[in-house]
Amino acid sequence: MDFSSKLLENAVNEVSRLPGIGKRTALRLVLHLLKQPKENTKYLTEALSLVRNEVKSCVKCHNISDTTLCDICTNPNRNAELVCVVEDIRDVMAIENTGQFRGVYHVLGGKISPIEGVGPQNLQIESLVSKVKNGEVKELIFALSSTMEGDTTNFYIFKQIESYHITTSTIARGISVGDELEYADEVTLGRSIVNRIPFEQSLKG
Amino acid sequence: MDFSSKLLENAVNEVSRLPGIGKRTALRLVLHLLKQPKENTKYLTEALSLVRNEVKSCVKCHNISDTTLCDICTNPNRNAELVCVVEDIRDVMAIENTGQFRGVYHVLGGKISPIEGVGPQNLQIESLVSKVKNGEVKELIFALSSTMEGDTTNFYIFKQIESYHITTSTIARGISVGDELEYADEVTLGRSIVNRIPFEQSLKG
Ligand SMILES: [Zn+2]
Ligand SMILES: [Zn+2]
Repeated sequence: MDFSSKLLENAVNEVSRLPGIGKRTALRLVLHLLKQPKENTKYLTEALSLVRNEVKSCVKCHNISDTTLCDICTNPNRNAELVCVVEDIRDVMAIENTGQFRGVYHVLGGKISPIEGVGPQNLQIESLVSKVKNGEVKELIFALSSTMEGDTTNFYIFKQIESYHITTSTIARGISVGDELEYADEVTLGRSIVNRIPFEQSLKG
Repeated sequence: MDFSSKLLENAVNEVSRLPGIGKRTALRLVLHLLKQPKENTKYLTEALSLVRNEVKSCVKCHNISDTTLCDICTNPNRNAELVCVVEDIRDVMAIENTGQFRGVYHVLGGKISPIEGVGPQNLQIESLVSKVKNGEVKELIFALSSTMEGDTTNFYIFKQIESYHITTSTIARGISVGDELEYADEVTLGRSIVNRIPFEQSLKG
């Protein structure tokens, strides 16, 4: 691309670093901002700077939060002994959206994937195992995507907590195998949590 | 969407105001930034702020520029009497990319579209007509998209300058009718400029 402005070129380059945004799309987005009032760009850049510099991770569940402990962990009406293990904060959002779950979460921050260089030590697994060891957990619901990496991660965690004899379950798969959790419809996802099955039973299937 | 962080919610809302970016995509982009080093967000927001606040419009051709006059208008090797009329700076970039054109541009900033509330007074038409009146132009090449709005705009301008008896042409349509100029391949677009035809002839077709 032949830019008549270095400022424009630089902005397009930065925007096109975002995943799934090519140069053409980036140019379209930047030109859109140039046509809008300056305030719009100000609000956008301020919101991005703020979230990047100020957002916290809940010390207990690792969900994204504006405070040290998230709203779910501090809610006395939530059952803190029922812990739903998810990959990502988008999964928390998806499950919260169903209104079916009254326990708390544990956000791993991904799943074990040797190909992408993600090992157990890169995920929030140790703090989960500690919770179980300390007797804080009565039931663990595995709600990872049913992909090979998800299954591997489930199994890795299960092996580490097996001896503590807590209840373990996985969400019922009304969702097709291989589908990402976050794209499931609310009804299916809500039902799959209510109808969760013992984890060991899921290993046989 | 149920956000556990107001900062995140705010950032997602701002990003999803961009055209073609839905809430889900915005969330994906913001979460990506949160996983990257803080510098990446800093570079992105600084580049956007800078381009929005500092970029100029060339006083002569209305192309985007970092200086009062753009590099094309100040280039002594370009023929300032051969003016190519385009809608948008993306069209300048597309034509420059062909390497086939040694004249200068006049960027209208859009096309006449009553439906979208864009009239001649919203476009850089008056300054173009002035250039013709002042004898600065020997040939005007109309390079707008061959849509109804493009044709209307061409015709509106043509009527205003007709009496000055300069050469007018439109780019040859190797490009299919209705296609956006900026998506044309370089060879077709380059050839269509070289093979431009007198504007009056294009009215008969
Ligand atoms: Zn929490
Ligand atoms: Zn210029």
